[in-house]
Amino acid sequence: MTRCSGPVVTAPGLRGARGPIDSAVMSVEEDTANHGRLLATVHGPQDVKRMSATELDILAAEIRDFLIAKVSRTGGHIGPNLGVVELTLALHRVFDSPRDRLLFDTGHQAYVHKIVTGRQGGFDQLRQRGGLSGYPNQAESEHDLIENSHASTALSYADGLAKAYALRGESRSVVAVVGDGALTGGMCWEALNNIAATDNPLVIVVNDNGRSYAPTIGGLAHHLSTLRLNPGYEKVLDAVKDALGSTPLVGKPMYEVLHAVKKGIKDAVAPQAMFEDLGIKYVGPVDGHDIAAVETALRAAKNFGGPVIVHAVTRKGYGYRPAEEDEADCFHSPGAFDIADGKATAAPSVKWTHVFADELVAIADERPDVVGITAAMAGPTGIAKLARKYPERTYDVGIAEQHAATSAAGLALGGLHPVVAVYATFLNRAFDQVLLDVAMHKLPVTFVLDRAGITGPDGPSHYGIWDMSVFGVVPGLRIAAPRDAATLREELREAVAVDDGPTIVRFPTGAVAADLPALRRVGPVDVLAESARTDVLLVAVGAFGQLGVDVAARVAEQGYGVTVVDPRWVRPVPAELVELATEHRLVVTVEDGVRSGGVGDALAQAMRDAGVRVPLRDLGVPAGWYPHGSRNQLLTDLGLTAQDVARDVTGWISRLDTEPVDPPHLTANPTPN
Amino acid sequence: MTRCSGPVVTAPGLRGARGPIDSAVMSVEEDTANHGRLLATVHGPQDVKRMSATELDILAAEIRDFLIAKVSRTGGHIGPNLGVVELTLALHRVFDSPRDRLLFDTGHQAYVHKIVTGRQGGFDQLRQRGGLSGYPNQAESEHDLIENSHASTALSYADGLAKAYALRGESRSVVAVVGDGALTGGMCWEALNNIAATDNPLVIVVNDNGRSYAPTIGGLAHHLSTLRLNPGYEKVLDAVKDALGSTPLVGKPMYEVLHAVKKGIKDAVAPQAMFEDLGIKYVGPVDGHDIAAVETALRAAKNFGGPVIVHAVTRKGYGYRPAEEDEADCFHSPGAFDIADGKATAAPSVKWTHVFADELVAIADERPDVVGITAAMAGPTGIAKLARKYPERTYDVGIAEQHAATSAAGLALGGLHPVVAVYATFLNRAFDQVLLDVAMHKLPVTFVLDRAGITGPDGPSHYGIWDMSVFGVVPGLRIAAPRDAATLREELREAVAVDDGPTIVRFPTGAVAADLPALRRVGPVDVLAESARTDVLLVAVGAFGQLGVDVAARVAEQGYGVTVVDPRWVRPVPAELVELATEHRLVVTVEDGVRSGGVGDALAQAMRDAGVRVPLRDLGVPAGWYPHGSRNQLLTDLGLTAQDVARDVTGWISRLDTEPVDPPHLTANPTPN
Repeated sequence: MTRCSGPVVTAPGLRGARGPIDSAVMSVEEDTANHGRLLATVHGPQDVKRMSATELDILAAEIRDFLIAKVSRTGGHIGPNLGVVELTLALHRVFDSPRDRLLFDTGHQAYVHKIVTGRQGGFDQLRQRGGLSGYPNQAESEHDLIENSHASTALSYADGLAKAYALRGESRSVVAVVGDGALTGGMCWEALNNIAATDNPLVIVVNDNGRSYAPTIGGLAHHLSTLRLNPGYEKVLDAVKDALGSTPLVGKPMYEVLHAVKKGIKDAVAPQAMFEDLGIKYVGPVDGHDIAAVETALRAAKNFGGPVIVHAVTRKGYGYRPAEEDEADCFHSPGAFDIADGKATAAPSVKWTHVFADELVAIADERPDVVGITAAMAGPTGIAKLARKYPERTYDVGIAEQHAATSAAGLALGGLHPVVAVYATFLNRAFDQVLLDVAMHKLPVTFVLDRAGITGPDGPSHYGIWDMSVFGVVPGLRIAAPRDAATLREELREAVAVDDGPTIVRFPTGAVAADLPALRRVGPVDVLAESARTDVLLVAVGAFGQLGVDVAARVAEQGYGVTVVDPRWVRPVPAELVELATEHRLVVTVEDGVRSGGVGDALAQAMRDAGVRVPLRDLGVPAGWYPHGSRNQLLTDLGLTAQDVARDVTGWISRLDTEPVDPPHLTANPTPN
Repeated sequence: MTRCSGPVVTAPGLRGARGPIDSAVMSVEEDTANHGRLLATVHGPQDVKRMSATELDILAAEIRDFLIAKVSRTGGHIGPNLGVVELTLALHRVFDSPRDRLLFDTGHQAYVHKIVTGRQGGFDQLRQRGGLSGYPNQAESEHDLIENSHASTALSYADGLAKAYALRGESRSVVAVVGDGALTGGMCWEALNNIAATDNPLVIVVNDNGRSYAPTIGGLAHHLSTLRLNPGYEKVLDAVKDALGSTPLVGKPMYEVLHAVKKGIKDAVAPQAMFEDLGIKYVGPVDGHDIAAVETALRAAKNFGGPVIVHAVTRKGYGYRPAEEDEADCFHSPGAFDIADGKATAAPSVKWTHVFADELVAIADERPDVVGITAAMAGPTGIAKLARKYPERTYDVGIAEQHAATSAAGLALGGLHPVVAVYATFLNRAFDQVLLDVAMHKLPVTFVLDRAGITGPDGPSHYGIWDMSVFGVVPGLRIAAPRDAATLREELREAVAVDDGPTIVRFPTGAVAADLPALRRVGPVDVLAESARTDVLLVAVGAFGQLGVDVAARVAEQGYGVTVVDPRWVRPVPAELVELATEHRLVVTVEDGVRSGGVGDALAQAMRDAGVRVPLRDLGVPAGWYPHGSRNQLLTDLGLTAQDVARDVTGWISRLDTEPVDPPHLTANPTPN
């Protein structure tokens, strides 16, 4: 967001850790912290296990310096990782990875884990092609197991893993680290309900920083925040620490310990009540930045041998003031930044997100029935701008895409037009809800899919390449893929004008493409380039509009004429697109999504149904898993550059000259199915 | 399941309601209940509103007689509806539908609601083509709003609806009726977390019968069942009733009332603690078969004006002994049955489910690493058979498909091979988890999709027609579609033998197709019929094998030769299928799934990529919403009969004789994408 490109704070940036370890850190900061003397000795968990308390405090400070220095150059999830330094050190001291299994929910808070498991050297290439992944990765280390980066999955993995070890008679602990934000996702509830019915050794560490991306919302969050904001909180922590120090017990005794503590600080026991109602023992809250306290709690949980929740209170961005004071959540996962003031070092650019955010506010100014929904990502999706102007018309549902979709259905049933802004990859969580709860009821809900197509540094789990195929099967759902700022504004307005069913508007990550005006419009289809010869109809989907024009120029040099069109609305397939196909000798589609069931497939089917026998070739993302890298690098790898596409198109059309040409029409499909 | 086809109980069936209303019902049963005198006067909610307590008790008995009489002939969700008779009457007395909105989660317990809202006359055609839907349906009544039949959605709808009314300044209550089973679904947690943060008038009625389909599982269920099984439970109910009768208060005062009651019956307050921790007020538990008690609780909740949970304890199948004593859950949604003993009236048949269930046990006998997972449907999916023999290797995760998929990933990471048995329509809930948590990790998990394709009486939300398209985009996922019992056994074994990624085995509802042996096998592809002429390659997917053979015979009468093949594994597209295509003049695919992104689309793409220019036509389910009816009726409507397909095929191939024929090969795609 724009706000994240400007100055975040005016105060100087770096400062040491706070609280009980402040003095230790401050005294060594000058001469050791920045040199990373202890950090250099860490090659695996065993090196952390043998450190003294004082050394651990120094190491934590060195890790923070290291993270800030590295991520300020590469970009990455700095905020979440600064918050889990002590927690991660304690985890590796108490448990024996990889025999014991450490599972990081969402996974972007695993940088410290990577450092502890011998991967310091990779941070110069963090999230870059061929470099260290921003998430756990089995190929990198035996200490990594799950590579997910969608939230709220770790407890389900942990339940399955613990059950497998139990069935196989293996005595291993399974530890899942999950944020309070991820707990707002329904999967966590499903998992907790199942875990509660087992007695396997499974430790759930709730990393409670009161934020997911933005501040965590909802009843649970309010409950936890009541605890954190309580003036007696520090006292509770001390009391808990004392109690834990002398009696490292879990469950019922713990309950009594807290009961004794709680007089006057009633809320402190409430999370326990909630979890224990489900049947899971609870330890906490503990100060997540106090290594000894966390260790004591983890050891108690480990020794208990059954499912236990350890509630650790941490602070996102801890130890780096611009990240700690980051209300707009710019430091969740910034690009490269200046360490001194936290400002982004790259020149600000106008992003697709900004165009959407501005236009949504403009639409909301005119249409009081338009409301916005975000799943814990108001800033990154641009919904924050609507929220600032119309807070009562903006809903943050937590990391809960299913609820986002179905509560949008409810809003629409109540006469409103919800705009659900979400990353393309995350709407997959709500396929069933979009299909049945929204589309089957023919409800006017607009889903705005940011970061659609190949994204890049976050790797395969973040690619928004499935949307046009998967949501393309939903009856009555219309999908728009704008190519630039002007068409994004236009298609967003067309989408919210639809009142008899859902719409999707999808666009990629990053800086918005340069304006590319149409020569003319045929039905909904924009013609972007044409020539006297009509050899090839090139269907350039969304942001590939400019690529299409570039391809046409290259192919023209070979003597062939290319008509470049942007269908604007890719589902349902515009009839005009089929009609245009009949006027050419070859149709080529190029899209920023998976080929199976994509725009090319859909157009080919529409042409078959109409009896149009013009040959078609469809370019897109082949089925597969593609590693992290920059979007441009990945598109190049996939052959989705003007040069590659032009070579393909020229090859195909030139071979048609030497082989028999098909009749343009066979016969229309006698049955409409 | 087989168990449901045999005798369920030996005791005589019908009996009156129990408890405080027993005497009233028993005294009038003989001369009025069976005649439905009061029921005949019910044309809308107002008719129920003006009845006396005695009349209501009689009406409840008449409704039960009516339901049993009607559903014993049509089949339908008898168990759930017998459990909510009094609850539904109370809802319509306290709230003013359709101004106030009654939302039934899952929706199959809305029969009583349909009766109260003037739809008695439709029950002779229940779930039949053109007749009354088995779920709420907007087209039937202004009292129906949501038509969903996937569980756990109602709270999300309600949250959205209540927010819309609040924003528009409309003063209307929203009431969501949700079962304790549906509360195990993650969406409910997401919704509760959001509802807790609002102060809109929203009443959540938890219909707690301790069962979803099978007994509800997990920590929550244990918690609720502790309450129900408590010997002091009746006393609690009485005390609560007394308390509510004199002080219809909600929230904090209620808490104190229960606190006063709870001495010695500690568990009774625990659900309250859990919900109140989230910030939602709680009333209950109330006896869900005591109309006055439910009414009092609902009025208190309505008057409170903010979100309130009303916890009503009911009994599934209440008032009909075979349904009440139905441990195997045969009376959740039986076919037609004999009222006297509850036995099915249709002759038992061997179903696809039975074949799967038997073969899974046989595999489990040989492979100790094979485990089973069900999402609260052990009986209907056949997993119950595995559970009886290997209870420690069978996991019922609740109505929680997301957790089913990701905990299966965890089990696979732990060295096991999970078989997740689920209705095809419900796996849509877990698309993201299958994609990233299972497939991206290349984990060997087998998903067995029962009720795939067009199902029938449950209507569009239950059609399993999306699976091959939606899961077809998942890289590395293999999909098998067996055509008969022998290939189901064979392909299931092939699926669990895959160790480098997930597999799907999908088959339709009902009686298994007659064995149809192959003439020969080409790679994985079975040739089912062939002739001297090779005009048409007919790709008959799964259970359409016999249809394919029938089509070939009909087309042969017109002088054309048809080769009928069953690909067995439809994803990825077998290379042999493309090769076979080159030997024919026309390829026709027929599948029991949506056309967009289906097997036809995938084969067409594979043929394009290979440069094969043989024309292809793909038959399947066109995009749209199709009403309930029998599977055969629906397939006929869709033109998916041997007669229709033969006519299509003959038409296409005959026209090829009068128009230029394409060369079989153009050129292979120079780039593999």
